[in-house]
Amino acid sequence: MGKLLIVGTVAFDAIETPFGKTDKILGGAATFIGLAAANFEVDAAIVSVVGDDFPDHHLELLKSKNIDLSAVEIVKGGKTFFWKGKYMNDLNVRETLDTQLNVLADFNPVVPASYKNSEILMLGNLHPSVQLSVIDQMEQKPALTILDTMNFWMDNTPDELAEVISKVDVITINDEEARQLSGEYSLVNAAEKIHQMGPAYVVIKKGEHGALLFHKENIFFAPALPLREIFDPTGAGDTFAGGFAGFLAATQDYSFENMKNAVIHGSNLASFSVERFGTERMEALDKGEINKRLQQFKNLTQFDIKLA
Amino acid sequence: MGKLLIVGTVAFDAIETPFGKTDKILGGAATFIGLAAANFEVDAAIVSVVGDDFPDHHLELLKSKNIDLSAVEIVKGGKTFFWKGKYMNDLNVRETLDTQLNVLADFNPVVPASYKNSEILMLGNLHPSVQLSVIDQMEQKPALTILDTMNFWMDNTPDELAEVISKVDVITINDEEARQLSGEYSLVNAAEKIHQMGPAYVVIKKGEHGALLFHKENIFFAPALPLREIFDPTGAGDTFAGGFAGFLAATQDYSFENMKNAVIHGSNLASFSVERFGTERMEALDKGEINKRLQQFKNLTQFDIKLA
Repeated sequence: MGKLLIVGTVAFDAIETPFGKTDKILGGAATFIGLAAANFEVDAAIVSVVGDDFPDHHLELLKSKNIDLSAVEIVKGGKTFFWKGKYMNDLNVRETLDTQLNVLADFNPVVPASYKNSEILMLGNLHPSVQLSVIDQMEQKPALTILDTMNFWMDNTPDELAEVISKVDVITINDEEARQLSGEYSLVNAAEKIHQMGPAYVVIKKGEHGALLFHKENIFFAPALPLREIFDPTGAGDTFAGGFAGFLAATQDYSFENMKNAVIHGSNLASFSVERFGTERMEALDKGEINKRLQQFKNLTQFDIKLA
Repeated sequence: MGKLLIVGTVAFDAIETPFGKTDKILGGAATFIGLAAANFEVDAAIVSVVGDDFPDHHLELLKSKNIDLSAVEIVKGGKTFFWKGKYMNDLNVRETLDTQLNVLADFNPVVPASYKNSEILMLGNLHPSVQLSVIDQMEQKPALTILDTMNFWMDNTPDELAEVISKVDVITINDEEARQLSGEYSLVNAAEKIHQMGPAYVVIKKGEHGALLFHKENIFFAPALPLREIFDPTGAGDTFAGGFAGFLAATQDYSFENMKNAVIHGSNLASFSVERFGTERMEALDKGEINKRLQQFKNLTQFDIKLA
């Protein structure tokens, strides 16, 4: 059972999809990462910040999943980070309607002493300077540092982002972001350029079209499970990252072969996440459902061509 | 070694991509299907029509692959079907610049007597009335009838197309066409509706995002091999269909498990087809290359999660 340190937002989301809309509900990258990772035997902690407007029951939910929240700062009189977004009909396009940084604007992350030797450091999507601060606070280099980021930081803080990228082992970004970061259209070429920036492993997320894992000359692909209905894609990428990180923290085997399994576990958990608004589906997910769907992933992808 | 009867165009293409352009080169659905199927132990024949402007060396090429061309009618004084198209930067969007039906306008297909008992009938993209005529000429229902079609026929000859669809076992169409045909956005729901129109097997081609095979409650997915460069997508769908049909004709095993392998073989061959203009890459393709790339497909997709 490895230690998994997660840094990222714990936040409020308000979501509008073709299927309905929500008021302020539980959201945030670290929330989705934590809920996904909690499905594995890990010792996980979140470093984050919320305002005192953040309801106890959200924190209790995360604690009930055995996630250590001692490094989630609660700012007196502060307001929690809030994101409001709307998905279009095909759910691949989303529009940000409102972003209120609030307490996140002055966030100084503090890594708890007992997690400074974590096996895995998972840097959720956040300002690169916060990610750098966490990297610098680690007592020893984690066995694996995983970075999730997005185009916003490529546009606005490219130098700080480049520094983070140079220090991580794994980067997870979506296909358009991989193209933007590398200047290459082909994802094979994009991954090669991103390798050269630092990460030995590059994960390119293609939403409903699955995810690719690149390492040197090796490529692995996990499809997204074909679903009748994608209800709300919010948090799918974070859930993927959380499943990936959680499985690796639990197994502590960082070989390419085991990372393939981690990608499948991440895809599997993401397939649940999109079935309900926000974290609803992830809050009550049992081992039986997870294993049943892993079997579906096997049926979906495994074939039997004999080669000499 | 099963008999495979292919009906479809044998034609001229002129292609423009971001990488260059061609004059009139060898093209046509039956051409690509035949070249792909020829990589398996099959007894294949093409039913088609060309004008006497069609060069002998194109016909000789197909004959050299052991494809029976006795039912390819050569119309004296006629001109061969011609398609001219241009691909945009991302190669998923194409524009038709010119279509000249020529001899195809009055095509009356005649199935050779020795192929009226073919195990597999592969109906390449063509006017549904031509496809129907071929179905009607068969002495006995083939073990498997496979239909490839496209949105043009959905728009222009929906009733005749519906009749063909009701008579086939397998349909291969792309994702947008599946949505158009079914009125469903989710491909799972689309496949279910299309099942109800006739085909027990529905193959949905997603181009660079792979292909899905649906049969009752079962789904199988084959990714497209991630490539550094896609040079010319023309014929990729036909090559996929030809590999699929060719493998099934060679093995004569129409179980879902073997169809999974057929989908992989189809995807594998399509990955070669797009590497050069037109049929160039398919004309000289050896078993060693094919097997090497099948191994890449295994590496790309096979994982080892143990489930109880």
